Amino acid sequence: MMSSKPSYPSEGTDSRILRGYCGSESSAVRPKLYLGPGPVPRRYLAEDKCSVAEAIPKQPPQRDVNGMGPIGKQGVNSDQGKCVPPPSVNVPANTQSWLMRKDVWAVQTSIHATNRKLDGTVDGMDTGTSSCLTYKWRVGISQDGLYNKKEGAPIGGWANWDFHLSFDMRAGPIISLASIYDLEKQIFRPVLYKGFVSELFVPYMDLDEEWYYRTFFDAGEYGFGLCAVSLEPMRDCPENAVFMDAYVVGQNGKPVKMSQIFCIFERHAGDIMWRHTETAIPRTIVREARPEVSLVVRMVSTVGNYDYIIDWEFKQSGSIIATVGLTGLLEVRGSKYTHKDQIEEEVYGTLLAQNTIGVNHDHFLIYHLDLDVDGDSNSFVKSNLKTTQVPDHGSPRKSYWRVVSETAKTESDAKIKLGSKATELLVVNPNKMTKMGNHVGYRLIPKSGAGSLLSDDDYSQTRAAFTKYNVWVTPYNKSEKWAGGLYVDQSRGDDTLATWSKRNREIENKDIVVWYTLGFHHAPYQEDFPLMPTLSSGFELRPANFFESNPVLKVKPPQDVMRLNCSILKVV
Amino acid sequence: MMSSKPSYPSEGTDSRILRGYCGSESSAVRPKLYLGPGPVPRRYLAEDKCSVAEAIPKQPPQRDVNGMGPIGKQGVNSDQGKCVPPPSVNVPANTQSWLMRKDVWAVQTSIHATNRKLDGTVDGMDTGTSSCLTYKWRVGISQDGLYNKKEGAPIGGWANWDFHLSFDMRAGPIISLASIYDLEKQIFRPVLYKGFVSELFVPYMDLDEEWYYRTFFDAGEYGFGLCAVSLEPMRDCPENAVFMDAYVVGQNGKPVKMSQIFCIFERHAGDIMWRHTETAIPRTIVREARPEVSLVVRMVSTVGNYDYIIDWEFKQSGSIIATVGLTGLLEVRGSKYTHKDQIEEEVYGTLLAQNTIGVNHDHFLIYHLDLDVDGDSNSFVKSNLKTTQVPDHGSPRKSYWRVVSETAKTESDAKIKLGSKATELLVVNPNKMTKMGNHVGYRLIPKSGAGSLLSDDDYSQTRAAFTKYNVWVTPYNKSEKWAGGLYVDQSRGDDTLATWSKRNREIENKDIVVWYTLGFHHAPYQEDFPLMPTLSSGFELRPANFFESNPVLKVKPPQDVMRLNCSILKVV
Repeated sequence: MMSSKPSYPSEGTDSRILRGYCGSESSAVRPKLYLGPGPVPRRYLAEDKCSVAEAIPKQPPQRDVNGMGPIGKQGVNSDQGKCVPPPSVNVPANTQSWLMRKDVWAVQTSIHATNRKLDGTVDGMDTGTSSCLTYKWRVGISQDGLYNKKEGAPIGGWANWDFHLSFDMRAGPIISLASIYDLEKQIFRPVLYKGFVSELFVPYMDLDEEWYYRTFFDAGEYGFGLCAVSLEPMRDCPENAVFMDAYVVGQNGKPVKMSQIFCIFERHAGDIMWRHTETAIPRTIVREARPEVSLVVRMVSTVGNYDYIIDWEFKQSGSIIATVGLTGLLEVRGSKYTHKDQIEEEVYGTLLAQNTIGVNHDHFLIYHLDLDVDGDSNSFVKSNLKTTQVPDHGSPRKSYWRVVSETAKTESDAKIKLGSKATELLVVNPNKMTKMGNHVGYRLIPKSGAGSLLSDDDYSQTRAAFTKYNVWVTPYNKSEKWAGGLYVDQSRGDDTLATWSKRNREIENKDIVVWYTLGFHHAPYQEDFPLMPTLSSGFELRPANFFESNPVLKVKPPQDVMRLNCSILKVV
Repeated sequence: MMSSKPSYPSEGTDSRILRGYCGSESSAVRPKLYLGPGPVPRRYLAEDKCSVAEAIPKQPPQRDVNGMGPIGKQGVNSDQGKCVPPPSVNVPANTQSWLMRKDVWAVQTSIHATNRKLDGTVDGMDTGTSSCLTYKWRVGISQDGLYNKKEGAPIGGWANWDFHLSFDMRAGPIISLASIYDLEKQIFRPVLYKGFVSELFVPYMDLDEEWYYRTFFDAGEYGFGLCAVSLEPMRDCPENAVFMDAYVVGQNGKPVKMSQIFCIFERHAGDIMWRHTETAIPRTIVREARPEVSLVVRMVSTVGNYDYIIDWEFKQSGSIIATVGLTGLLEVRGSKYTHKDQIEEEVYGTLLAQNTIGVNHDHFLIYHLDLDVDGDSNSFVKSNLKTTQVPDHGSPRKSYWRVVSETAKTESDAKIKLGSKATELLVVNPNKMTKMGNHVGYRLIPKSGAGSLLSDDDYSQTRAAFTKYNVWVTPYNKSEKWAGGLYVDQSRGDDTLATWSKRNREIENKDIVVWYTLGFHHAPYQEDFPLMPTLSSGFELRPANFFESNPVLKVKPPQDVMRLNCSILKVV
């Protein structure tokens, strides 16, 4: 059924295109220069070169000297500084050389570096002319055989689900070959050939000299998987979690183990899978209820300041729920202000604490969802709910809505900005029907529909054009994995989902990929400082005429064995 | 601080205006006739009169005789039938009399009556002329003193929250006087004076003679609280739940106990309250993570076929999350069709099984949210995120977004249809500021923004005009509790949130009420039959500059005591 595709993941991530930040190992390996459509890739100063040998001013530059608050007043010396390569994607793409920047952070004033950025400390070198230094931040070159490249690690059958999980330096977790057991047909039926976070885009909204270029592509630049962190039992994951390690290629070509990168657990959240009390039968009450038990696969990627909690949840009812939880540290900037009333200029954010501005920004994540609903030939259907007026005297009703379904023929039919329009989004298999004659399908149910507010000609937006629509559908193409392009740094935006889609290829009854962009606009509030309580969004893939009827109706009720009661609740 | 308002709930629900369906006790009490602005209220046939004495056809009427499938082929006799009063709100309001309908269901063919509706079985009497029979379905007349009318039942302090919970026959759970402890200020600060489900609107989209009028107002017609059902330990609520009973007034004026109507439990869902791993410090990894533990108050209301799971969740971070889970039985209709290919006419729904159509419909719930953010004088603020173009040469950036906040002066400024516009919705206290000078506030974060698709002149829509906007804000008014009007049945829609708001009253720096409508459009899928796996939506009230900083930063990590491991997970 899947013979037309390579067995996953034969491509693998070329680690040379990640510029590192979260690299777990370092050595001086000189990467191959990329000479593709964009300008030359960024080169990175070695950490030790930056933080030890370079002159970091004891005091921030004059124009911010009143604005540094506790940091500015202390000043820093070179032992307290740390160099971090900033993003470069807001540089005009036709600039073949630009100033290499280093942001300097005062690490000794806080354990959390990004809370203590020293504004006004910029140094530079011209990447077009200068010679290269070392490449400590750069991760090594990938080699074959480091981790199971065929199909990821198979997760043993859980309830009615079967799927594989693998780790990718760029994407993080990859769910593949997810299929669900059909009790009636007595077979596993495919749902999701491959699902992963293809790219993140985190543009900041500060035009200042030291901030305008902060528009991060966390997967393509840093490696969303490479930035994964070890999970802590009982805190990051519940008591019943099991943990899995991941392996990446070090710069010397040897495998590097990353410990406890995934946790997998059954979720017993106290929710109800389904229930009904029948009260309409005289003198009889019939009640049936089933608690929800699902399986969660979790990874946390800490890309500098932010922690992204990436959950893939499998429900016995057939739903796959992808959730992104945002927590971690706000990226703040120093400021001279200590009260909002002092502010008369545009500060691009919220005064969160004395001398501390939380800068406005967005988080966009685009998921690559290669659905294979009961086979690999699928179509994308928009079911629009249309208000229909009833002719006079046709009925006491004046109006109703009906479902007007539209199968997307080509890519342009499937570009969707979510909003007020009432539309259900489906991936159906036009070659498979239920006994009743409905096309077998899955729905995509979004939880929020934010899209980029940047203008199309903004440099970073050119590269992040995938954020202009929440939904895109493309025919499967082996080379189209990374929505921001294979090489993101300083690219011209000519190898992105938006450019691939311009060909407007046919997508009806084909092996298609749905791309879903979810977003958070983040105008910071004081509660987000210094560390933000988790804010979540996501989407659900829910069976829609995939089964003949409710697939969990026969789930047995749990045994009434009380576990330890941990409640501290008191009801007066 | 709250002296301007009556102590809750001095009004109480006048049970005479509920027409019953879920009544827990019955006797022949003749209700007072309501002679208000609408036509005369509906009168109801006694259940025994209907199901025993009346002639229920052995076979469905001729026009559906081929369409009844298993039911139609069996036929029913009078012992198998059951009478249920249908809704009347789709009758033109100026019709002073109309045919009294009874829907007949075959109860012996299924334990779930609404799965086996016998279409084509309509009987009637003219309410304008005929004499009344008995009123068995009608609940009794309320009297004082039945339950604590002052402030509901106080829930003992849980974590940093304090709130009261009470039960109302019409609304179900009412959360009141919710306040949160501020560790820095060392006081409890008010957040939510009162929150409850004010009305539900469930219009079906079938124009057929026996279906066009099915547009239910589940609170105002049936009593959302009156339809609450007993919760089952370990299935409806987790092992650590505690249960509370509720009391209603029976028709004979005596109290009637409803057992285990609320459950209250700590939720340990495996989520993360906040976390961060600091990876940017050379040779040091700092990690802190806190698991999320919240408190959930749950009630389930089974209004005929559907079960609504109503959760109020309190997070230690200050968020209040309201969630509605939809499960229970689809309301289906008989049909002659056994395969989709046979269908050539409009059937208003999906063929779910042989001879069974799941009719398209909506579920709208409107919440009355009387927020008192740090006091009762509040304002409603729309923070619009506006794209701003950067002048040429002003910056290498071309655009950014900024927050343009707009305080709603009058009610018309606060009517909002959620959609693609990037707007944050806040209730702020303009008289209270943080140390940084930000107005103290709470955000309303919607999860979905569906609104009614019916035309404004449709009879039911006139009464359910509150579904035209997702957000409304009104000044507090003691008499404005029920968004569909105090008397919903056959009302003319002249006592609804939409009519109150036409006065366009001032709402700035006043005691205001936010009304939030959430909705589900439901075009049924086969998985929803016969019983639908839970589908959820809701909203979050989240502190926004209410605290000076993250209020849960000092929450201690849990003790590392392993509870019983119930995982059945195997990782290969």
